[in-house]
Amino acid sequence: MQDSVLSKLHPIDIASIIESQKENEKLITFLMLPKDIKAEVFSYLSPVLQEEMIQKLGSTQTAEVLENMAPDDRTEILENIPDTLIKESINLLSDKEKNIALSLLGYPEGCIARLMTPYYVQAKKDWTIKRTFDHIKKYGKKAETLNFVYVVDDNNKLIDDIRIGMLLVTDDKQTLESVMDYEYKSLITTMSKEDAIHYFDKYDRAALPVTTVDGTLVGIVTFDDIMDEIEKRDTEDFQKLGGVEALEFSYTETPLLSLVRKRAVWLIVLFAGEMLTASALAFFENEIAAAVVLVMFIPLIISSGGNSGSQAATLIVRAMALKELTIKDWFYVMRKELFSGFSLGLILGVVGFLKIAISHNYTGADYGDHWLALAFTILFSLIGVVMWGTLSGSMIPILLKRLKLDPATSSAPLVATLVDVTGIVIYFSVAALLLTGKLI
Amino acid sequence: MQDSVLSKLHPIDIASIIESQKENEKLITFLMLPKDIKAEVFSYLSPVLQEEMIQKLGSTQTAEVLENMAPDDRTEILENIPDTLIKESINLLSDKEKNIALSLLGYPEGCIARLMTPYYVQAKKDWTIKRTFDHIKKYGKKAETLNFVYVVDDNNKLIDDIRIGMLLVTDDKQTLESVMDYEYKSLITTMSKEDAIHYFDKYDRAALPVTTVDGTLVGIVTFDDIMDEIEKRDTEDFQKLGGVEALEFSYTETPLLSLVRKRAVWLIVLFAGEMLTASALAFFENEIAAAVVLVMFIPLIISSGGNSGSQAATLIVRAMALKELTIKDWFYVMRKELFSGFSLGLILGVVGFLKIAISHNYTGADYGDHWLALAFTILFSLIGVVMWGTLSGSMIPILLKRLKLDPATSSAPLVATLVDVTGIVIYFSVAALLLTGKLI
Repeated sequence: MQDSVLSKLHPIDIASIIESQKENEKLITFLMLPKDIKAEVFSYLSPVLQEEMIQKLGSTQTAEVLENMAPDDRTEILENIPDTLIKESINLLSDKEKNIALSLLGYPEGCIARLMTPYYVQAKKDWTIKRTFDHIKKYGKKAETLNFVYVVDDNNKLIDDIRIGMLLVTDDKQTLESVMDYEYKSLITTMSKEDAIHYFDKYDRAALPVTTVDGTLVGIVTFDDIMDEIEKRDTEDFQKLGGVEALEFSYTETPLLSLVRKRAVWLIVLFAGEMLTASALAFFENEIAAAVVLVMFIPLIISSGGNSGSQAATLIVRAMALKELTIKDWFYVMRKELFSGFSLGLILGVVGFLKIAISHNYTGADYGDHWLALAFTILFSLIGVVMWGTLSGSMIPILLKRLKLDPATSSAPLVATLVDVTGIVIYFSVAALLLTGKLI
Repeated sequence: MQDSVLSKLHPIDIASIIESQKENEKLITFLMLPKDIKAEVFSYLSPVLQEEMIQKLGSTQTAEVLENMAPDDRTEILENIPDTLIKESINLLSDKEKNIALSLLGYPEGCIARLMTPYYVQAKKDWTIKRTFDHIKKYGKKAETLNFVYVVDDNNKLIDDIRIGMLLVTDDKQTLESVMDYEYKSLITTMSKEDAIHYFDKYDRAALPVTTVDGTLVGIVTFDDIMDEIEKRDTEDFQKLGGVEALEFSYTETPLLSLVRKRAVWLIVLFAGEMLTASALAFFENEIAAAVVLVMFIPLIISSGGNSGSQAATLIVRAMALKELTIKDWFYVMRKELFSGFSLGLILGVVGFLKIAISHNYTGADYGDHWLALAFTILFSLIGVVMWGTLSGSMIPILLKRLKLDPATSSAPLVATLVDVTGIVIYFSVAALLLTGKLI
């Protein structure tokens, strides 16, 4: 009966009825509401009552309420109330459902909140050390890492982290405040996993607390999850750099067909790009027909550009992943790579030059009357192609980052393909310049 | 006086003299020995006295003695006596000297002992929990991670690890033995850093104890150093896979000339390898002269082999680094890669075939009367080249590992170069088979 009467009211009114009821009745009234109204009514309850409700509702009920709530209301609740209990119930779910729940709770994929665990020890500054230890005895058993006690104020805002070691060596009648320095390191829920890795690298902590933007403590992230994230990030970068779409599972666990698909995508893209080499070569058909000797050096020239480009792309992508370089450093990188490219191109060019000179003059090879012009063509082409390789290999990742894309997408094969096409143009242009009237 | 008398004796005799002396005299006699004899005498002292001596000698003296000792004697000492004090003194040294000292102490580069820290809490099983906490209060302040107390027997052999959380929730009058389960995870001093990373990945511990082969506890390794090692390992693998010798410092910290040098080495090797493409092409000079159209597709064909090889090499090198694959899996990998290679080659081959067919029949391109034979040449060449690419890309890393070399050395560019040369041979062989009497 009560059910049907209540359901005719506006959720706000139901909420105020619940608020006005006696302690025990509140929960009963709430539980008897129809499923579709529950979530809305819940969002109108006062934060304090919301907290109480969650404490009394089982995890299934809590999950149900949260699931049916509008995402913004849900996020607000999560951001505003000290929600150890929400997190407790989420932690009872399977990994898959936990992911869904956290996402429902307003934390998008890729943000550090997804890795939070609720098993940490929090305390208030006026607690004595003895009380803190008693608290740990009661609640700290599950705490993943017991290196720190997190001190919060009355609004659950984080105000300090205290090393347990520090508490163990201090007289246990003293309050926490006596050892507090109000200096702490923390992460923010919306921070990216990449940035969180950087924090862990920097501060060498086994765990870091996570707060909302306004400083409310909502969880901790532990080193083991960060370690997994580092390996996951690097594996993805490896695969992308190698010209494979990032695999979802390990090599052994990836089914053959999905492995082929992940590789085919990029191979086809690269193949399509590489078709331009055929067009470029077709453009120089007359030169080729006139001087077949030029053909011999095509793979040598373009692969040198590709290799130097792969090197540059690898170095820059990795340096950016480790935050050693940012897009602001583009000019520094460009200068360094142009100089490197020039030096490397000169080295290879001289090797190529000598190879032709020696082959022609001291072995059976015959590069004709114009062998010297040919040798110079190789020398200058290599300088040009290698410089172009290092320049594209280094600038493409930075450009991708600038466009908010993953720099690792500039796979070594992608850079190599780009440089193959332009390499042909550079090579035959130099040849046209130096050999016209001689060989061609 | 005593000095000169003693120095005439054999170190074994001096050692026995010292052993026989009274407590206070022992140290004095030892300290008065000439520098060059000290180390040898020390190695003849009984392990118990060695330990006492080290406790009394300052860190400078200890370092001096150890430095002048034969490496095998030194290692023996380290392996045999409970050497918290040696480690303490080593820890007083700068990072550079610590490295040297640890290396002098018999731990070669790359083994996990190099990452040990002596700041951990060890206890005996008959201690009460209260006594353990008192001990922590006294000595545990510096302990890097306070998650575990390590229980050792009278010979300093590790027999258990106990979570501090467990102690906090147990009555403090009980002995450690009452909560012990004699099950623990530990590393061995000589274990490689790679293997240690794998252990940390597996057990999610913030720290793991390190013992000698016979189980003596000598230190702990903490997650933060392991995290650094993971990133170091991955950076090295990235650079090697990208065809760069691993840099010692970050990209930004590496001086330009050393950057050029690290890259030039591999570029020259690859360039020399790629010169074989010129030889291969020279071998097919007549075919080329007869059918210039074949030239157009050279970069397309060989780069497809290179790209698929890079993909395979990247996947396999990474999977081996994460220990998802070992050399024993070579047959599994070979089958998977041959099938992948066939599928990928077929896909690219069909794309290539269609491109020629469509270009010839519907656009301006003219591939002559034998366009169909040419299209089939491209199709079959691509299948062959891509299969060869995935096969070499996947087998070379496994072969390198088998030869106890780093699989990452099989850089993507190296595989690509190898496949470039053989790709030309495959392409022109297929062409000879299908086009002789037609185009060539």
